[in-house]
Amino acid sequence: MPMIVYGDSRSGNCLKVKWTARRLGVPLEWREVDIMTGFTRTPGYLAINPAGQVPTVILEDGRPLAQSNAIILHLAEGSALIPEDAYARARMLEWMFWEQYSHEPAIAVARFRMLFQGLPRGELDPKLVERGAAALARLELGLQASPFLAGDRLSLADISLVAYTRWAHEGGFDLVSYPATREWIGRVERALDITD
Amino acid sequence: MPMIVYGDSRSGNCLKVKWTARRLGVPLEWREVDIMTGFTRTPGYLAINPAGQVPTVILEDGRPLAQSNAIILHLAEGSALIPEDAYARARMLEWMFWEQYSHEPAIAVARFRMLFQGLPRGELDPKLVERGAAALARLELGLQASPFLAGDRLSLADISLVAYTRWAHEGGFDLVSYPATREWIGRVERALDITD
Repeated sequence: MPMIVYGDSRSGNCLKVKWTARRLGVPLEWREVDIMTGFTRTPGYLAINPAGQVPTVILEDGRPLAQSNAIILHLAEGSALIPEDAYARARMLEWMFWEQYSHEPAIAVARFRMLFQGLPRGELDPKLVERGAAALARLELGLQASPFLAGDRLSLADISLVAYTRWAHEGGFDLVSYPATREWIGRVERALDITD
Repeated sequence: MPMIVYGDSRSGNCLKVKWTARRLGVPLEWREVDIMTGFTRTPGYLAINPAGQVPTVILEDGRPLAQSNAIILHLAEGSALIPEDAYARARMLEWMFWEQYSHEPAIAVARFRMLFQGLPRGELDPKLVERGAAALARLELGLQASPFLAGDRLSLADISLVAYTRWAHEGGFDLVSYPATREWIGRVERALDITD
């Protein structure tokens, strides 16, 4: 039985799993979940993920796993997507935890408010906009220093961060001031065969 | 030169690093940082951590590393604090990413508002209180199933989650309804020799 992914195709967190599996040649069965219908709050879904979030995967042996970054770390163990050097690996993890704490809660949430809830840009919480701009500036600084986040090669940090950065404009963030970030997005999309 | 930790002793994120290093016998030099003075926004500090957050460590070889969970994962590589079993290790990471996304931003932030900013409990954002209660309920569910978060033994997931859970009352959250969580806090504090 291949791995089953419960995911919403409009969610960057879910696409991280799809891209990582494709890159590694891991077969998966994608089960499309519309996060706006309340399905993730049904007893059946909460039984596999009590946090009620997507993505959740059911591994080949039937055991569930949640949290996008934990899932891709599990899938990619022993692969070239995780640097062999201990410090580069630690920096990759630093970026991945930063993504979930400082980037996703601003960049993805602004997009959710506008795209899913129909809020005009001008009505976004100014603190959210400020946090998003700070996250993009910090990312740009990192990408001015190296072509990929954890050094010279693509790693899970790039997969994790590109997911919502490439959609930042849908949350009203203009990437025109972040040239290193824009070049990096193209580089990562090409490496992962992201065409949509 | 031992590892240097820039940390605020009132920050659970910083104490994770102290406890992990002590457990592993890794020497460290603690440099106390008061997060309320603006020191983490000075050019000198931003040069070692552009995100301006604590903790940041300077490793033995002089290279910086940030994000509490990335730091403890780096310190504990190859130790008994990281399960050997691949699935247990993935679940440990699931809890650690969940901590930074769903637990810390509610439990630690409520405490920050009350303890550092002097806000009365009744003036906390109701959504913050709701998110914190949901996080504690989800944690309790996990701890009803096993004595430690990633199975039968102490792991980094316990260190990560206990940091702010043991202080939840300082953010106005009463743990009386969470008996498995209270027992687990005692178990983890004893295992880590936390006496303060």
